[in-house]
Amino acid sequence: MIIPTAYENLLQKVHRLHDLEKISSILSWDRQVSMPKAGNEARAQQAATLRAIIHTEFVSDEMGDLIAAAAEAMAGADYDSTEASLIRRLQQSYTDERKLPADFVTRFTTITGQAEAAWEEARAGDDFAVFAPWLEQIIALAQEKAEYYGYKEEKYDALLDKYEPGLTTTEVRAIFQAAREALVPLRRAIADRGRPVDDSFLYGHFETSKQQEFARYLAGVVGYDMKRGHLGTSVHPFSTSFNQNDVRITARWDPGFINPSLFGTLHEAGHAIYEQNTGPELARTPLARGAWMGFHESQSRLVENIVGRSRGFWQAHFGQLQATFPEQLAGVRADEFFRAVNKVEASLIRVEADELTYNLHIILRFELEQAMINGDLTARNLPAAWNEGIASLLGITPPDDRQGCLQDIHWSAGSFGYFPTYALGNLYAAQLFEAALADSPEIEHELNSGEISQLMDWLHEKVHRHGRKYLPVELMVQATGRPPDHQAFIRYATRKFSDVYDL
Amino acid sequence: MIIPTAYENLLQKVHRLHDLEKISSILSWDRQVSMPKAGNEARAQQAATLRAIIHTEFVSDEMGDLIAAAAEAMAGADYDSTEASLIRRLQQSYTDERKLPADFVTRFTTITGQAEAAWEEARAGDDFAVFAPWLEQIIALAQEKAEYYGYKEEKYDALLDKYEPGLTTTEVRAIFQAAREALVPLRRAIADRGRPVDDSFLYGHFETSKQQEFARYLAGVVGYDMKRGHLGTSVHPFSTSFNQNDVRITARWDPGFINPSLFGTLHEAGHAIYEQNTGPELARTPLARGAWMGFHESQSRLVENIVGRSRGFWQAHFGQLQATFPEQLAGVRADEFFRAVNKVEASLIRVEADELTYNLHIILRFELEQAMINGDLTARNLPAAWNEGIASLLGITPPDDRQGCLQDIHWSAGSFGYFPTYALGNLYAAQLFEAALADSPEIEHELNSGEISQLMDWLHEKVHRHGRKYLPVELMVQATGRPPDHQAFIRYATRKFSDVYDL
Repeated sequence: MIIPTAYENLLQKVHRLHDLEKISSILSWDRQVSMPKAGNEARAQQAATLRAIIHTEFVSDEMGDLIAAAAEAMAGADYDSTEASLIRRLQQSYTDERKLPADFVTRFTTITGQAEAAWEEARAGDDFAVFAPWLEQIIALAQEKAEYYGYKEEKYDALLDKYEPGLTTTEVRAIFQAAREALVPLRRAIADRGRPVDDSFLYGHFETSKQQEFARYLAGVVGYDMKRGHLGTSVHPFSTSFNQNDVRITARWDPGFINPSLFGTLHEAGHAIYEQNTGPELARTPLARGAWMGFHESQSRLVENIVGRSRGFWQAHFGQLQATFPEQLAGVRADEFFRAVNKVEASLIRVEADELTYNLHIILRFELEQAMINGDLTARNLPAAWNEGIASLLGITPPDDRQGCLQDIHWSAGSFGYFPTYALGNLYAAQLFEAALADSPEIEHELNSGEISQLMDWLHEKVHRHGRKYLPVELMVQATGRPPDHQAFIRYATRKFSDVYDL
Repeated sequence: MIIPTAYENLLQKVHRLHDLEKISSILSWDRQVSMPKAGNEARAQQAATLRAIIHTEFVSDEMGDLIAAAAEAMAGADYDSTEASLIRRLQQSYTDERKLPADFVTRFTTITGQAEAAWEEARAGDDFAVFAPWLEQIIALAQEKAEYYGYKEEKYDALLDKYEPGLTTTEVRAIFQAAREALVPLRRAIADRGRPVDDSFLYGHFETSKQQEFARYLAGVVGYDMKRGHLGTSVHPFSTSFNQNDVRITARWDPGFINPSLFGTLHEAGHAIYEQNTGPELARTPLARGAWMGFHESQSRLVENIVGRSRGFWQAHFGQLQATFPEQLAGVRADEFFRAVNKVEASLIRVEADELTYNLHIILRFELEQAMINGDLTARNLPAAWNEGIASLLGITPPDDRQGCLQDIHWSAGSFGYFPTYALGNLYAAQLFEAALADSPEIEHELNSGEISQLMDWLHEKVHRHGRKYLPVELMVQATGRPPDHQAFIRYATRKFSDVYDL
């Protein structure tokens, strides 16, 4: 195919903007991993300056003309081609971003930059009052943003659409409701008749340097390529991609509890594997990334839970963990470890929750977010609403805000609408896994030996290489033959927890 | 004073460009400290994209108009005011940068980005051939740059002027010659009649984590504010400032030799202290940095050598070092340690050289650079020329290129003209120190107790706070009453090494 000049011109601009986007991600990585707190004010200014350039260039009339000219020149291109996919993507985001005024974008970046530092301080000192005035500003900004984007039914739709385009608030409510109705009886059965699980050996003293060593081992086992990556440390673990050959993850190292580093690393490695395996032909374009947040989360949850909390995985790798912590794990069998890391119980911290109650944590945030965006809940009243919600959903009360409404970074970053994608990710993961097993039954055998390369090959082929060429629903239909639903997750969870708890 | 609108307009543009400059520095920090090698190609593209934006905006006609309008509006401003100083600085750099075509700037950034990775690979594998083709390109770029800038006497002048404006190649040759003529007899005296120095205890096994712990202690002792900084690890130690409240340093940790981490840390801390103490009113402008390279180096060498290799310093702090490494330094007295870290001998690595022979390392590089820029020496012939030069100056031959022409990062970064400023830094440091003692004789007493706060106060007042408001010669005259020369350094070195070697 001869690429028309109009498309080449667009591509040049797209590369340039993509470079600037990635620079923005580098600033964010550095802020969370290396920057002294004192540097935050200047960093927020730097990030805002860069964001304003990206926004101004992207929403320029020139960009609109470049997209229109390329679209015309490539009108006959195959829907599945990189070129047609890139043009679709750009048309959508150009339309969206034109709706945000430049001064709003600058304010949003500046305030969230400073708010993240305030959140870290509030969290460290368990002092919600430090964060409250920033949250108040951020809620107002999110409401303002929703108005710019516009919405049909409710304000929250406009925000959700940016993380999982094509799904409405109403639809998410329905999916969550169906999942809840199936999971609640399962949870009750576990509580009523499950064989008790001992997880006491997960708590003890685990040296940070050894946790780091084992985290590197784990990341390698699941297929994260460390030669094209980096494992850092941050308050809230995250993964970030600067290009396919530089995809990084962070973890936190709790010296008294082994789970956060194990499953945090597996989780972030799942995200990173996705980014490391997008098609090379997508490089330096907005297609070189996962297909929105639910799909991204499906890859992290698949690695963390479906693979990383499976019986076969720990049959194969527990020996290595035990060799790393021989005293702490003396006398523990692989099978006991498998059961321990799948213990179901009401707990306070989302990122450490089991696969079943995790979804309740998300439902709480989903409801609180809607209330804040609708104006039914103010920043100052968040701790009370949070504690009430967690008590009603899980029957427990946080002893402080650190273990309550200050535990997540998302609101300080202004990411309203993001949380629901975590639970959607759980559902997507199970649906993809079920389809992979149907296509290649030998994957199950391989997983029982702690190997995942065939599963990864299937994911590379069906999901990873496509990057952001397709909408979530399109990608799911291609990969599994049907749109996203909650059923595979229910089947998976029922089978797994019946095994864990001898139901 | 009422600030005219024309000046405010200029300042807004200056802040924006300064933010982008600092973002460029963050990319460089990240590349050297965290980035996996595989990320280098994309990083070079990102850096080039950013550099092109900065260059294009800075050399725009709009910028010229802003500077001209502000200059006119501020015509009556005091020479010493921030406003007049900023306008002077911008006029000079605007004129200079207008001389570089945009495509040249992009090529320069892209090629040096890739060349730095090639240099690291060449250095790690002791394989000069990996670096040679890159060096060849970089020499050609430096020659091209010199032609764009223009020069009166020789091509090298154009490059030197960017690091130490106001000094010509001829003048530097003369200063180095005068210094050499005084230092050679001193070195001969040491070799002929100096009391032998035992430095065997500097070599042994020093755990990296303990070296890092002591480096933090040392950095704090000399006044580097870690709350506004960060200590990282990189192949070639450096310091970098993202703003006054985020000034970072790196070190390398040689497990078999304690000196690199001690004196590397002191050296970079000296640079960082300068940046942390520029006047807050200079923030987000190109005045918020040290007065060119020689002055910057004077601060690092003052902390590293004049303070950090003094008898009083180790009388006060050796106990702490000994407590960190009790086995390795058992039975060593502070006085013996002081003499050991001041041992004068021919050695191969510039950054580990003693204060006397250090200057010979610089003279070699100064001569080789001129030869490469003049076309008398090609990249492929560098190793031979290097080895010949080091043999003639120091009587020793590098066993490999790692300890020869591959030891420094500068040429891979295209920084021709930078090296001479290291030796100038030594001379400036001694001249400033002598003036400080003359103004405040109690500084000497304080130093003998290992304290340096009065010396730092003098430097903050006379040097640091002014940032880049003045040319080096102006700043030196203000601080010491005379232009830079070699005499104070000779007095200082003679006194110190007569003490160390009982001459």
